[in-house]
Amino acid sequence: MNYCSHCGSAVTLRLPEGDNRLRYTCQQCGRIHYQNPRIVAGCLPVHGDRVLLCRRAIEPRYGYWTLPAGYMENGESTEEAALRETLEEARAKVELRQLYTLTSIIHVNQVQLIYLANLPHAEFGSSNETLESRLFSEDEIPWDELAFTTIRNALQYYFADRKASPPAFPLRHIALSPDQDDLILVK
Amino acid sequence: MNYCSHCGSAVTLRLPEGDNRLRYTCQQCGRIHYQNPRIVAGCLPVHGDRVLLCRRAIEPRYGYWTLPAGYMENGESTEEAALRETLEEARAKVELRQLYTLTSIIHVNQVQLIYLANLPHAEFGSSNETLESRLFSEDEIPWDELAFTTIRNALQYYFADRKASPPAFPLRHIALSPDQDDLILVK
Ligand SMILES: [Zn+2]
Ligand SMILES: [Zn+2]
Repeated sequence: MNYCSHCGSAVTLRLPEGDNRLRYTCQQCGRIHYQNPRIVAGCLPVHGDRVLLCRRAIEPRYGYWTLPAGYMENGESTEEAALRETLEEARAKVELRQLYTLTSIIHVNQVQLIYLANLPHAEFGSSNETLESRLFSEDEIPWDELAFTTIRNALQYYFADRKASPPAFPLRHIALSPDQDDLILVK
Repeated sequence: MNYCSHCGSAVTLRLPEGDNRLRYTCQQCGRIHYQNPRIVAGCLPVHGDRVLLCRRAIEPRYGYWTLPAGYMENGESTEEAALRETLEEARAKVELRQLYTLTSIIHVNQVQLIYLANLPHAEFGSSNETLESRLFSEDEIPWDELAFTTIRNALQYYFADRKASPPAFPLRHIALSPDQDDLILVK
């Protein structure tokens, strides 16, 4: 950040009064420009004993498989964001069950929320961001071609949790740092 | 937003290729400036049968009671944010139990995460943002002097949930729109 988005003057890093972090501060109008993590919301769509994955049509990780997920927008809830991304990326209409993974991806300033979801009809497709969507049974999952650590985690938890009797899908709370994150690419 | 934070030129609202929302876009360097919800993380600290509240020393809702919570920063996890805010605002060291409420506050573009937490020692205080901290039993809660709808929700759920046998504290997933939000002030 070099310039104030309000008045266009130069910003400098300063410690605001009462704060304990340097913030980009406008020398002209005095506005403080905070920078905060962003939320990525998505789904793990389940159809019978199979799950829906999307093959990425965009970088990073072009051609690798992922769950439908993307940045939450202003003016929507986390659930609405997860449903919207699933519709946009996989052309799939799902019913949300519950929040399943919450991952703080510390080195890229993201918090990723993945909802467990039912895909009632086997209808899905491709999009600007997705080369193809496909249902996978557990033994078909392309573990070596998954796009991100968070996706691998969600799938590993899911296939383990559904073997419990009765199946239980507690919220998985994860914090990823770079040394634990061998798949995600740092932007 | 009026100017590009990267190059200082004017921005205009445009529809980027492949997008379906207008975005602030720089006419000079082409950068797209996305705007996304921010995360507020905090705690519901429990000490015996009492909970810890903080009386706000800042606007909005100066003088009203709240739970310790604040904006998540880059470079930390949601749990770290909740612990940090509790230490900064209430001078209290807590042990996190589990995520308890997740509220999308749609009209202010926030997602609030409140963790249930144990306060092992009755040690707490005031700060820049807190006039005083105090432990409250259920019948002492100042329901008419709470700062925000989200705080009232968390406390109402907590006192109801701990009466269950055995006590159970499932994640409460909430989406607030302005008509359901009689306490929070729109910024
Ligand atoms: Zn300025
Ligand atoms: Zn620019």
